[in-house]
Amino acid sequence: MSQAQIKVGIVGVSGYSGMELARLLSRHPNFSVAWATTDRWAGKTLGSMSAVGARLDSLVCATQEEGQTRFGDVQVVFLCTPPEVSIDLAPKILAAGARAVDLSGGFRLAAADYPRWYGFEHHQVELLGNAVYSLPEVTNSAEALRTAKLVSNPGCYPTASSLPLLALLRAGVIEPQGIIVDAKSGTTGAGRKGSEAMSFSEVADDFRAYRVGKHQHTPEIERILALGGVPDIKLTFTAHLLPVRRGILATTYGRLADGAGADATKAAEAALQAFAKDQPFIRVVDAESVTLHAVVGTNRVVMGVRADVERKVVVAIAAIDNLVKGAAGQALQNANLMFGLPETLALDDLMGHQP
Amino acid sequence: MSQAQIKVGIVGVSGYSGMELARLLSRHPNFSVAWATTDRWAGKTLGSMSAVGARLDSLVCATQEEGQTRFGDVQVVFLCTPPEVSIDLAPKILAAGARAVDLSGGFRLAAADYPRWYGFEHHQVELLGNAVYSLPEVTNSAEALRTAKLVSNPGCYPTASSLPLLALLRAGVIEPQGIIVDAKSGTTGAGRKGSEAMSFSEVADDFRAYRVGKHQHTPEIERILALGGVPDIKLTFTAHLLPVRRGILATTYGRLADGAGADATKAAEAALQAFAKDQPFIRVVDAESVTLHAVVGTNRVVMGVRADVERKVVVAIAAIDNLVKGAAGQALQNANLMFGLPETLALDDLMGHQP
Amino acid sequence: MSQAQIKVGIVGVSGYSGMELARLLSRHPNFSVAWATTDRWAGKTLGSMSAVGARLDSLVCATQEEGQTRFGDVQVVFLCTPPEVSIDLAPKILAAGARAVDLSGGFRLAAADYPRWYGFEHHQVELLGNAVYSLPEVTNSAEALRTAKLVSNPGCYPTASSLPLLALLRAGVIEPQGIIVDAKSGTTGAGRKGSEAMSFSEVADDFRAYRVGKHQHTPEIERILALGGVPDIKLTFTAHLLPVRRGILATTYGRLADGAGADATKAAEAALQAFAKDQPFIRVVDAESVTLHAVVGTNRVVMGVRADVERKVVVAIAAIDNLVKGAAGQALQNANLMFGLPETLALDDLMGHQP
Amino acid sequence: MSQAQIKVGIVGVSGYSGMELARLLSRHPNFSVAWATTDRWAGKTLGSMSAVGARLDSLVCATQEEGQTRFGDVQVVFLCTPPEVSIDLAPKILAAGARAVDLSGGFRLAAADYPRWYGFEHHQVELLGNAVYSLPEVTNSAEALRTAKLVSNPGCYPTASSLPLLALLRAGVIEPQGIIVDAKSGTTGAGRKGSEAMSFSEVADDFRAYRVGKHQHTPEIERILALGGVPDIKLTFTAHLLPVRRGILATTYGRLADGAGADATKAAEAALQAFAKDQPFIRVVDAESVTLHAVVGTNRVVMGVRADVERKVVVAIAAIDNLVKGAAGQALQNANLMFGLPETLALDDLMGHQP
Repeated sequence: MSQAQIKVGIVGVSGYSGMELARLLSRHPNFSVAWATTDRWAGKTLGSMSAVGARLDSLVCATQEEGQTRFGDVQVVFLCTPPEVSIDLAPKILAAGARAVDLSGGFRLAAADYPRWYGFEHHQVELLGNAVYSLPEVTNSAEALRTAKLVSNPGCYPTASSLPLLALLRAGVIEPQGIIVDAKSGTTGAGRKGSEAMSFSEVADDFRAYRVGKHQHTPEIERILALGGVPDIKLTFTAHLLPVRRGILATTYGRLADGAGADATKAAEAALQAFAKDQPFIRVVDAESVTLHAVVGTNRVVMGVRADVERKVVVAIAAIDNLVKGAAGQALQNANLMFGLPETLALDDLMGHQP
Repeated sequence: MSQAQIKVGIVGVSGYSGMELARLLSRHPNFSVAWATTDRWAGKTLGSMSAVGARLDSLVCATQEEGQTRFGDVQVVFLCTPPEVSIDLAPKILAAGARAVDLSGGFRLAAADYPRWYGFEHHQVELLGNAVYSLPEVTNSAEALRTAKLVSNPGCYPTASSLPLLALLRAGVIEPQGIIVDAKSGTTGAGRKGSEAMSFSEVADDFRAYRVGKHQHTPEIERILALGGVPDIKLTFTAHLLPVRRGILATTYGRLADGAGADATKAAEAALQAFAKDQPFIRVVDAESVTLHAVVGTNRVVMGVRADVERKVVVAIAAIDNLVKGAAGQALQNANLMFGLPETLALDDLMGHQP
Repeated sequence: MSQAQIKVGIVGVSGYSGMELARLLSRHPNFSVAWATTDRWAGKTLGSMSAVGARLDSLVCATQEEGQTRFGDVQVVFLCTPPEVSIDLAPKILAAGARAVDLSGGFRLAAADYPRWYGFEHHQVELLGNAVYSLPEVTNSAEALRTAKLVSNPGCYPTASSLPLLALLRAGVIEPQGIIVDAKSGTTGAGRKGSEAMSFSEVADDFRAYRVGKHQHTPEIERILALGGVPDIKLTFTAHLLPVRRGILATTYGRLADGAGADATKAAEAALQAFAKDQPFIRVVDAESVTLHAVVGTNRVVMGVRADVERKVVVAIAAIDNLVKGAAGQALQNANLMFGLPETLALDDLMGHQP
Repeated sequence: MSQAQIKVGIVGVSGYSGMELARLLSRHPNFSVAWATTDRWAGKTLGSMSAVGARLDSLVCATQEEGQTRFGDVQVVFLCTPPEVSIDLAPKILAAGARAVDLSGGFRLAAADYPRWYGFEHHQVELLGNAVYSLPEVTNSAEALRTAKLVSNPGCYPTASSLPLLALLRAGVIEPQGIIVDAKSGTTGAGRKGSEAMSFSEVADDFRAYRVGKHQHTPEIERILALGGVPDIKLTFTAHLLPVRRGILATTYGRLADGAGADATKAAEAALQAFAKDQPFIRVVDAESVTLHAVVGTNRVVMGVRADVERKVVVAIAAIDNLVKGAAGQALQNANLMFGLPETLALDDLMGHQP
């Protein structure tokens, strides 16, 4: 490692996105993890708790309390914490002179949306206003990230759902009204916690919808579409729990815009291709080739589309790994941009989990 | 077993729905399996190939050819065969004086629909016209079944998808335009065949859509809605492959009809409850309690609904076991009615697979 | 249901073995569930919490405290409770005039074994001495069960492991020294509890050994062998956690006895066959046909064997459903015998979960 | 990439180990894949068929026939082919002036063992005699590899099973007689083929032993032990099929050598630690921490041990990823050594699949 290493800290390394981030950082040429906190593993090495690259194998986990004394030792802190914790810690990190990337939902919506969708009042409204919400493929945030103090990393469902929809909306292929997102996620999206509902005996061989009509990612998808140039969308979003550990697949439905011809599928594909142009992490494939296997372990978004001219509906499907492009990978993508590094650094050579 | 036993034959017992039917029949008090055919297991006992009730344990499988000489020995033949085979065998069964229940898609659509959706011309058009398509909860077919010679048993996706939709359409809760069915099925729905695409290494930890925009169950769902009193529906149906062996969950989306009030969810639930009234196999629960675990191993349809007044959308979710209510159980339900037996006989005491 | 119904109560119905027992009882012609207790589901119907036969669908769960007032209302109480709770409740049940079947480990070992293997002193030593430990295929307990007040139902691993070993030991095919049992179980064996270790994200795609060298089922297997006529065995038992919900497969290794000829596999198979004779639930098949699919959902023990004359080792493999033959099914088998009913009643027509 | 790139070819890239090797090579700084063959994907890019690092994304697959004309273009060819094909191709590769690494069983045993264990006569006996069989942690093959023309890469089960056993045998902790290896593998070990037996519907929720008493990895484990200094071992090996895609866990049992004291577990652990010393890919942990999650996605061998002094048995457990340390990773480890590169290059920063 060169002397130009950028020092980073991780708060909440024992969670699934925290550990995934540690693994990604363990093979990054420019970031060096100075400390990682988690009360659960305090005093233990990362390598003894999970398979991490050799470079971080012997890093000893610190307590959350110790971590708070070391914010000033690093240039950037990754918050892999629940929203309330992130909202509490972010100002302290900034006060210590470090920058922060928050992987939680703590800084993703307008303050007014928090009571309804997150169940609490946001008490850092000014900081929320200054946070840079960055889904790089949409927000063109490279420049803003260079100076951003607090970066808000998008949610997993919003990342998967918004990209194909925005491609089709921008191209006028679908109407803005009546959009449906039927999304399915693996269990790591629910975090690392022990509950009967998330136990193997209950989840294996099962499938179900959850938080129907009230999932907090609904307004976040709408916000991304607005940031991407299509405001005032009200869509329907349903989340389902898949009996797999990783991966999100979102099947989206939009009404085919008037005037579409028999080649509507071609036009829709062209819209996705245009959107994907120069985007290193987006792959456009046939709708039936959008699979979890194609994305798990990578920072990719794979998407495909089919139009049904008779029924005037466009079905666009997208998949991501919820822990990589849906969390830690996207956080690293943002961090690369924050420090002027290539966006794909240590992200485009990830090995997929496909057998 | 009493002398009043009704003799039955099973063609294609080694397939997943054939074997499930054998298991169901092995504990039925009035049906007695005289023979079961499958070239793959010919000469072997059912009990040596699969766990079946003690009564059928030592039944020796016959070849398909032998079976054709024994159609006249039984009162009813269950066809657990591909559509083309069913179309070929059904007239021979009737000619031999037996009745037939076809579990395939061979007699489910209008003749004109076969080339597009099944890829072949139907060459038994007259027989197709006389077949009784029976989804008992919709078709009120008890009387027609009493004398039916050929009964067409509905498909798995159509069974799961049509019931909640019909309940909402009949009650005027949703509009007939713009219905979306996003359905997910376990792997046994694809039949018992060896292919790389269906291998464990490819399916486990994965999820994907298939036959997008061209699944043959699309017109069958529309037909059921028409049979149930709501004609001329054109809906969008997308099938997905779940990494589970059994079970279908269909998430359906309809546009909330004008005039709905803030209590639209209540009205929608009332519509489901009204539909389920006196239907022994339908359970109405909260939308988030519709799970595969609640139905696998049983002949039940479990369904729930939520309306979003702001977005003017109704989300109704239904689940069934694709091999029971979606195939063999429903076939037995129909057979019970064909012979004047209680509809629920040997079907309402099934043990679910829920742990 | 006839007037001759035997009234039963279930303590702990919301656990996996409790619910499986309720499902089995819901289709039993002679037992009638008068009450079932569980604080978690108190006030709710069984049918609203799990798929149970129609007969028990509307049974309302009572609290554990209420249950204690109703011991005298029934002829037999099934204890689906942790060992400490069973030890506490059993004397109260007997005092109320009912009989008890305990599915826990509370009455399975000698009192002296409890501190080492269960971690507590047994405080009902006299009752323990009077309990009838019944693995019907070994203990010839039909007569003792007729008058037994307290019946101790065997553990899941001991049931699967001891039967093939005893068959081989009795026939002199293997030596009593050096026996190895390498057993693998599904997750429901760990009970219905929420813990990170048992969460889907941690268990799926994984496999591991647990309680290596100290599992409490080790002495229970040894006890069964002694009850079956082969005392003083000390064997090695290793338990592993499979990423499946149900089923145990035990691969056992014994040293081939001196004097075995080239036909040792045949002799070993003959030993299993002799053991299985007149045992309705034991099936002897080829060693490679012993699978979880062959047993899950049934009360069967499926077993097979191969001898390696060169290496002087016999490999015998057995499988059961841990919730049926390993718990609730065996409890019902014992209860059938307690009340003079056929051993197989409502157990030999179970539908397997094989697809 | 620098000019010093070593050109390599892959025969059979569409198999599971072939694709895993391509992924590993796509991020290796010194090896450059000149061509990769597979008739199934001929004409398609690697990136369109699987998630591979950006560098190999657009590599177009060649036919097997085309590959044979390009052996001379590269310095080393990796054979990811069935044994018979490897035996046929290896001499052609050497004749063309390239070196070969064979991932199959084609060059792993003595010629005399092939008829019994592989079912065919080996017709390249001289080449077999010259092949360098290399399990680096055992064979100290670094020097031999520098000049080896043909390298035989060990099997998956032998790699996992032999390492803990050899550690214990060398230290005299266990006796050489009576060793049992009870091993369990994920489905990718069976290769990428479509068969009913390997279909998801048949494998999910199941577990079974296979090739009991006749698996071809039995003599290979014995050979490794001999190469490692412990000749003439005859052990018992049983393979089982886990319902997971990747990973092998081997539970091994040895008889505790005479004279062991109460601290036999400590002595056994010390033996593993001594064996692991200076071995970058071996981790010694507690026996209950040996899991598939700890190794899948990595080139690691994780192992642990417990001794039972009372029963005089030592239980040692080891786990690997069958596609990495059990196939492609180990092949790359060998290739690193063949070309004088660090053994761990592009292998010690792999991201595990642990969530």
